[in-house]
Amino acid sequence: MRMSKLFLRTLRDDPADAEVPSHKLLVRAGYIRRVAPGIYSWLPLGLKVLGKVEKIIREEMAEIGSQEVRFPALLPREPYEASNRWTEYGPNLFRLKDRRGNDMLLGPTHEEMFALLVKDLYSSYKDLPLSLFQIQTKYRDEARPRAGILRGREFIMKDSYSFDVDDAGLERSYQAHREAYVRIFDRLGFEYVIVHADSGAMGGSASEEFLAVSDTGEDTFVRSPGGYAANVEAVTTIAPAPVPFDGLPAAHAEQTPDTPTIATLVAHLDEAFPRDDRPWHASDTLKNVLVMLRHPDGTREPLAIGVPGDREVDAKRLEAAVSPAEVEPFGEAEFVANPALVKGYIGPGVLGADNVSGIRYLTDPRVVDGTRWVTGANEKGSHVIDLVAGRDFTSEGTIEAAEVRAGDPAPDGSGPLELARGIEMGHIFQLGRKYAEVLDLKVLDENGKLVTVTMGSYGVGVSRAVAAVAEYAHDDAGLIWPKELAPFDIHLIVAGKDEAVVAGAEQVYADLVGEGFDVLFDDRPGKVSLGVKFKDAELVGVPTIVVVGKGFADGVVEVKDRATGERQDVPLAELIATLRA
Amino acid sequence: MRMSKLFLRTLRDDPADAEVPSHKLLVRAGYIRRVAPGIYSWLPLGLKVLGKVEKIIREEMAEIGSQEVRFPALLPREPYEASNRWTEYGPNLFRLKDRRGNDMLLGPTHEEMFALLVKDLYSSYKDLPLSLFQIQTKYRDEARPRAGILRGREFIMKDSYSFDVDDAGLERSYQAHREAYVRIFDRLGFEYVIVHADSGAMGGSASEEFLAVSDTGEDTFVRSPGGYAANVEAVTTIAPAPVPFDGLPAAHAEQTPDTPTIATLVAHLDEAFPRDDRPWHASDTLKNVLVMLRHPDGTREPLAIGVPGDREVDAKRLEAAVSPAEVEPFGEAEFVANPALVKGYIGPGVLGADNVSGIRYLTDPRVVDGTRWVTGANEKGSHVIDLVAGRDFTSEGTIEAAEVRAGDPAPDGSGPLELARGIEMGHIFQLGRKYAEVLDLKVLDENGKLVTVTMGSYGVGVSRAVAAVAEYAHDDAGLIWPKELAPFDIHLIVAGKDEAVVAGAEQVYADLVGEGFDVLFDDRPGKVSLGVKFKDAELVGVPTIVVVGKGFADGVVEVKDRATGERQDVPLAELIATLRA
Repeated sequence: MRMSKLFLRTLRDDPADAEVPSHKLLVRAGYIRRVAPGIYSWLPLGLKVLGKVEKIIREEMAEIGSQEVRFPALLPREPYEASNRWTEYGPNLFRLKDRRGNDMLLGPTHEEMFALLVKDLYSSYKDLPLSLFQIQTKYRDEARPRAGILRGREFIMKDSYSFDVDDAGLERSYQAHREAYVRIFDRLGFEYVIVHADSGAMGGSASEEFLAVSDTGEDTFVRSPGGYAANVEAVTTIAPAPVPFDGLPAAHAEQTPDTPTIATLVAHLDEAFPRDDRPWHASDTLKNVLVMLRHPDGTREPLAIGVPGDREVDAKRLEAAVSPAEVEPFGEAEFVANPALVKGYIGPGVLGADNVSGIRYLTDPRVVDGTRWVTGANEKGSHVIDLVAGRDFTSEGTIEAAEVRAGDPAPDGSGPLELARGIEMGHIFQLGRKYAEVLDLKVLDENGKLVTVTMGSYGVGVSRAVAAVAEYAHDDAGLIWPKELAPFDIHLIVAGKDEAVVAGAEQVYADLVGEGFDVLFDDRPGKVSLGVKFKDAELVGVPTIVVVGKGFADGVVEVKDRATGERQDVPLAELIATLRA
Repeated sequence: MRMSKLFLRTLRDDPADAEVPSHKLLVRAGYIRRVAPGIYSWLPLGLKVLGKVEKIIREEMAEIGSQEVRFPALLPREPYEASNRWTEYGPNLFRLKDRRGNDMLLGPTHEEMFALLVKDLYSSYKDLPLSLFQIQTKYRDEARPRAGILRGREFIMKDSYSFDVDDAGLERSYQAHREAYVRIFDRLGFEYVIVHADSGAMGGSASEEFLAVSDTGEDTFVRSPGGYAANVEAVTTIAPAPVPFDGLPAAHAEQTPDTPTIATLVAHLDEAFPRDDRPWHASDTLKNVLVMLRHPDGTREPLAIGVPGDREVDAKRLEAAVSPAEVEPFGEAEFVANPALVKGYIGPGVLGADNVSGIRYLTDPRVVDGTRWVTGANEKGSHVIDLVAGRDFTSEGTIEAAEVRAGDPAPDGSGPLELARGIEMGHIFQLGRKYAEVLDLKVLDENGKLVTVTMGSYGVGVSRAVAAVAEYAHDDAGLIWPKELAPFDIHLIVAGKDEAVVAGAEQVYADLVGEGFDVLFDDRPGKVSLGVKFKDAELVGVPTIVVVGKGFADGVVEVKDRATGERQDVPLAELIATLRA
């Protein structure tokens, strides 16, 4: 392909809305172009890389015997009504009506449709196991589309689904997918981790995420020296052993004027109620946080969450814990509607089913029976000390909503956790029988009895993978594609206007193409400076750059490695062999 | 691929909603599966054929230097507002709102988006000519989705767009596309014609359609012995020469009781007002047909159309003539609202701007000045005879709405027309500057002056092509794919349960795969009868069927040609060579 013909304009400036490197560089280098928030077009360079990602995925899916199909994106409401996701997806679902007034949606994921297809065509245990996949355009009306194609509202996903008669079969199908995913992400070339994940709205039992490790990732994950790794939403807290009530002091309310925050409270406690053994600590206090839940059916419900005062409530962990409900702030109007709540001094006394407010109250797993807390006395300027869980108050259950911190113990005892950030690239689920049951997907077993099929669901973000690779492999000058994903094998530059050099570059271009290389030939006329050509080459990021210039008279061209920056002069006769090496 | 693993269930019965062979066979043979009206899934066999159609198109588009990009399907309203198509598309457009209340649409075609992309990146005549294409999912909310994937609401299209600085450039780009389309349709293998077409809502000057000739096609086209061919919507009527008024008799109203139809009128005329030279004929009468137009903005307008009494108004020609307005029936309520209209006896006296009803009146091109007509006298049981066009009445213009009939003269004088039916497979348009003007797509010319770019737009129905090939190549037993499009090269059948034969078939399978053939191996166990296997093979339609059976003991297998039905016994040693031939 000649640069003079390629539909490409590299841009000097970062797009105004771009924050992360992949977004900036993919737009500047002419791979993608924004159409609307979270909605992008693929330009020729981008489409080539996308095709290479798809090829890797198809090869690895074929390797595990998964068969490709393709569903429409525009789908009828009924199957999603049956699974309740028509409601559960809330505002994330693009909904529309057709000309006859039928409700339709743009598919966010296709569990229901695949289950119905298999139900439609298959009927016996002999037909299983079965694995089907598609590479297809998906839609989610994200509240905060961001980072270009990293989190779009229209995006390309590989989704596959496995169908088995029994749990052992599902486990095998899940493992086969897991291994295929390892191979796919190994080939894509970025650093990734496999973490325990929360199944969220998808339902089902086991699930793991493949995260591309990246400081710009939206997901926080944890890992321990012993090999534990999890999505922060999936981390469970190790609860301490309960403490016998015997000998614990009685609770006593105390005046604690001007202590609306944990820090002011701890300072006041040390001053007014000093302890012998150690100073007071924020973790001795119980902070009660109020939020409003919006359920999928639109109803709203207040929720109080008690967490140790040294920890914040983590928005993502809270969201995962209350899903499919969404979390909204507990505003001034809510305080007005609940006059028993004294802002800054809220305690268990007014919370929970047995208490005056009637607000549901859930506590951190660390709040086990016998633990002693300083918490609000539901009166301005007053806290209660030595309030004992299980003796003086109870909650209606535990909730994993407190932040996870570096140094927290791994749930499996494998050591202290470290925190890092990642981009969710794949997610695999053992769905079990949730969808098969509501859609009545059954087959006859060996004894002629109908049994419900058990399903797995497996996704890879295909368009997102292009961004993840760009996020992993770039420098200040531009993109650095691995060989298997690069839009071209070689970026050939003609340096200067000298006729012999130009003719030589044309010959080298013809030779390389003849040898089967996919070459981007920067044949732009001499008035485009060599500096501009080099800058564009670095920005576009083809792995190998060949320069035909002054040395050509002596039968030598320059070969540059985009990743390492290494240059070497190569005799023309050895060029093909060098490039193949 | 082993049949025992392939996700396939062939069906014995035609789907209840299927009328045309391609629809019946593609569903029965497991290529596609219905999800909703006009919305289908691609099963493994169908997706393979679709991929091969796409490959042919990509190769031929590359041949003319067109570069592939991919736009989203979910698009913002604004560009389509600028071109007025947000309104003009009427109920055919799928519209929706996102979570922030923004109007969006599912793209029916992308002229606006491509024009904006080029405007965004290019600015000089030196950047042109440019040709871009995409293979992408399109959406149109058809009033009558039909025939499976022949006319779907979600479908795959190849759309390309050319950009030139001047008319000569557009002509070249258009011709290049036309030639690429000829090669594409030649390779797809069905019979097709290229016809003059109506540009319809798309706008622009010249346009041609590529129609697959098929009795089940929705489009009627005409052709003459001299090589003229046109979409029936694009046929223009040869108007006769005007006749001088001198010597024409005066118009006279006559009682014509009980003559509400043309046939009863003609019979009455022959009886009550016989002519010397020849009997009365329906073509002597002028039939005035009333319809309601619904304009894109929702307003409704009555329209009267005068056509010779021997011709019906053709719904498609009328629709094309009044586009972007839609045609609705003129109902009883409309007659009540226009009491001057006497049903069955309507004449020009009450129509047109100068007349009492105020209804717009357009006439067939054959109604030239001096032609004499028998038509309604606007009184029950009364007609007016010798009413002379241009003398006794005028219309507000002509309209091409009367049916075209076999034997009508070709507009270019190339002889009598023959009528046939076809499926619209491709449509090429010289759009000109319509979209560039409203979207302000300009480039600097050689003199540094801004000039508006001129565009072409070119479409191929990709999913529809799969159906068109099936429609062209099938028999009662099933599909008959051409080699280049078949889902597999070879359909290998093992006949019987004999262990040696089964082992032999396995060996042949391995050998064929080893030689690079893509083989569908019907390895289903012996209890699936040979009859069922043959039936499935004929239904699925792979071009070559190889049977390993009794003859295997003597080193012979049977090779059958699906299209011709020819069978030959081939020694194993010669099998590969025979298949390659």
